[in-house]
Amino acid sequence: MATTQAAKRQKSSKDVPYELIYWPGIPGRGEHVRLALEEAGASYTDSAHQKDGMNLVLSQIDAKNVGDASNPPPLAPPILKHGDLSISQTPNILLYLGPRLGLVPSAEEDEDAIYKVNGLALTALDGLSNGPHDCHHPVATSQYYEDQKPEAKRKSADYLANRLPKFLGYFERVLQGEASKGGKWLYGGKLTYADLVLYQCLDGVKFAFPKATARMEKEGKFGKVFDLYHAVQERPKIKEYLASERRQKYSDGIYRHYPELDEE
Amino acid sequence: MATTQAAKRQKSSKDVPYELIYWPGIPGRGEHVRLALEEAGASYTDSAHQKDGMNLVLSQIDAKNVGDASNPPPLAPPILKHGDLSISQTPNILLYLGPRLGLVPSAEEDEDAIYKVNGLALTALDGLSNGPHDCHHPVATSQYYEDQKPEAKRKSADYLANRLPKFLGYFERVLQGEASKGGKWLYGGKLTYADLVLYQCLDGVKFAFPKATARMEKEGKFGKVFDLYHAVQERPKIKEYLASERRQKYSDGIYRHYPELDEE
Repeated sequence: MATTQAAKRQKSSKDVPYELIYWPGIPGRGEHVRLALEEAGASYTDSAHQKDGMNLVLSQIDAKNVGDASNPPPLAPPILKHGDLSISQTPNILLYLGPRLGLVPSAEEDEDAIYKVNGLALTALDGLSNGPHDCHHPVATSQYYEDQKPEAKRKSADYLANRLPKFLGYFERVLQGEASKGGKWLYGGKLTYADLVLYQCLDGVKFAFPKATARMEKEGKFGKVFDLYHAVQERPKIKEYLASERRQKYSDGIYRHYPELDEE
Repeated sequence: MATTQAAKRQKSSKDVPYELIYWPGIPGRGEHVRLALEEAGASYTDSAHQKDGMNLVLSQIDAKNVGDASNPPPLAPPILKHGDLSISQTPNILLYLGPRLGLVPSAEEDEDAIYKVNGLALTALDGLSNGPHDCHHPVATSQYYEDQKPEAKRKSADYLANRLPKFLGYFERVLQGEASKGGKWLYGGKLTYADLVLYQCLDGVKFAFPKATARMEKEGKFGKVFDLYHAVQERPKIKEYLASERRQKYSDGIYRHYPELDEE
């Protein structure tokens, strides 16, 4: 699949840099796209660092945008443009980029690898990105955190006691399994974009719940997951990126640090 | 992509029926997989109707399951087995099945159609499947509805006032857009699995909130979306399926009908 499509692409309008359209000011879901592009050393533009970035996002998600002749409109960022193509939804963008950036085995090497990597990425995003968001906005996304504090406390306690260990335990099992080929990376013995997704999710969860995650790391029950986290962080291109100004600080996005929601 | 892989498949271990592994007793997320298989008239087995179906699901998601030599373990059903392949996550299973069942344009016809259809399916599942689940379990998935009733009421009010119209309005826009090629189906003028996903999501939301959805349908603001809903329901194979015993009734799953959470 990758080779055939890449060959076609040489002749197409897609021999241009990728364009990421995402909110300025937070890593957010756009960060998963950035890490893939950065790890691959790909050429891309990022609306978060463009002068009129905010308006670019707003025009894309405007209630009057009905898309164009070949692309449905996006509901929300991140949005990836590549030549004439415009797609949204984080795992969908990664699915598109994965084979092109060499972040998933090609179909020639491993026919169905893309479905295994996509499944792992979807699982990480479900439990470790949507989950933490719901912790600070359990009853109404449209209202302020301050208006749902007791519910947020209850939701966070449930998340830290049940959901978070469930998902970390799941990825620990994936790393113990034979399909990981050694347990350093989630699938096939090589870094894939699912590893980058897990890294970024865990980084956000660590920011939101530093005490709970420090305790979990110390207890050693999810040792392989935390090893993967540190291994991603040490990859040369990721390390350079994380230290650069292109990496934005956590703020009022998916991952928020409210000390009262963390463990005591 | 579809043709190449289909050609390979002729010679592979995959010339066997699809196996769906999902909880017996609720349509749930497994229903999206069933509707795709049914619309295509594909040959498949369904653990929901097998004698030991519940144990089959439980053994798959057991905390000791580390997968096998080529497949990571699943976190949760639905799980699709096809020959040696075992994959999970609803949109991932549909991504795999879509080209094989003719429910997405082939890469030869429309190179990037799969990403557009996948994006639409992910959006529907996010807002119209995860959303309604959170309405009855806003603060703790691990606790009973009865222990979070006031929060569920608040969450549902927010959902009906904000999230649901936002998502229905989004799909109405998609159907107004040129990429839908006429506004009967979401993308490219032909039924894709994204239409089946939207149908099933809306069917569940209608079950959960009959009064609110009846009002919305009557108001006519999302006319194209409701037309699509009825058009899917009238497709011969879907119609036969919905009337059969293979279609399970809604119960204590994602979509639940608590009259107190609906509009007055």
